[in-house]
Amino acid sequence: LELAEVNSLPYEEFIKRFGGAVEHGALVAGAVWSRRPFTSIDKLCAAFMDFLDKLPIEGKEGVIRLYPDLAGHLAHSGSLTAESTQEHKAAGLDTLTSEERATMAELNERYKTKFGFPFVICARENKKEAIINGLEVRIGNHASAEVETGLGEVKKICDLRLRDIVTDSTPKL
Amino acid sequence: LELAEVNSLPYEEFIKRFGGAVEHGALVAGAVWSRRPFTSIDKLCAAFMDFLDKLPIEGKEGVIRLYPDLAGHLAHSGSLTAESTQEHKAAGLDTLTSEERATMAELNERYKTKFGFPFVICARENKKEAIINGLEVRIGNHASAEVETGLGEVKKICDLRLRDIVTDSTPKL
Repeated sequence: LELAEVNSLPYEEFIKRFGGAVEHGALVAGAVWSRRPFTSIDKLCAAFMDFLDKLPIEGKEGVIRLYPDLAGHLAHSGSLTAESTQEHKAAGLDTLTSEERATMAELNERYKTKFGFPFVICARENKKEAIINGLEVRIGNHASAEVETGLGEVKKICDLRLRDIVTDSTPKL
Repeated sequence: LELAEVNSLPYEEFIKRFGGAVEHGALVAGAVWSRRPFTSIDKLCAAFMDFLDKLPIEGKEGVIRLYPDLAGHLAHSGSLTAESTQEHKAAGLDTLTSEERATMAELNERYKTKFGFPFVICARENKKEAIINGLEVRIGNHASAEVETGLGEVKKICDLRLRDIVTDSTPKL
């Protein structure tokens, strides 16, 4: 999709196209539409990030709760969103051994019990070993810091997904 | 669902049950989970209202953009959510004459062109004549006031949907 086309989308179409930039995030896309026109892809991404940053703490937690457990039940049953399926593959999470899957499942549960939201990490920027290691380290964090860390990963994932959707071939001066 | 059960739901289940209280509002339900336990249905409803009230203006617009056009394309093709389908029926919007439907469609388009979000009204509290009349009146409003009016209707719809889901048979003192 060209940036000029993005700027001309009615909100219904904008939400259809960008409602998955944040997982199950139709509300986020609907809000960001208010900021158009976007003069660059960077500005479009920044509008998403800014909306997420300005949410109250429970809103940030709510956003993180929209994400599936990594290599969890939804992944195993083939019920992930198209975006998450691709990202799982990029990290090698579709080829876990049963031992690795059991480790992930146990760490995910411990993480969720402690924080009340799932462990989110940008799978396209990490391989499975780094992800399991990240889980082990982040379980030790304080809850308040971990909301921001999780939201930071949500933002990285969102940025990459947006750049998958939009191209900008406007000639630069 | 009993209130005590609501308070014991993990966030995944809470979002499944309450993600439609605000249309396509998984994020809202995910955020409200942070406020549990709820000591009454009123407190549960208040937590949803409070979250909506505290959103920045573009967030409120984003919420309103999650709603379908009343008696619009989605209704005509049977693609509404279960909740919206029921509410359309309650208002008699499923039995519009082709003339009434054309009037609604034209008013909806004028409204959306002016405000950049759809006309939302609590259909269970209005009949089709009042709805068409409301559209005609509200098109004349200022944009800033109309966001709050639309959000007020979102909140009424949300409140009724929540009370459809939850019962509280805790003995009162």
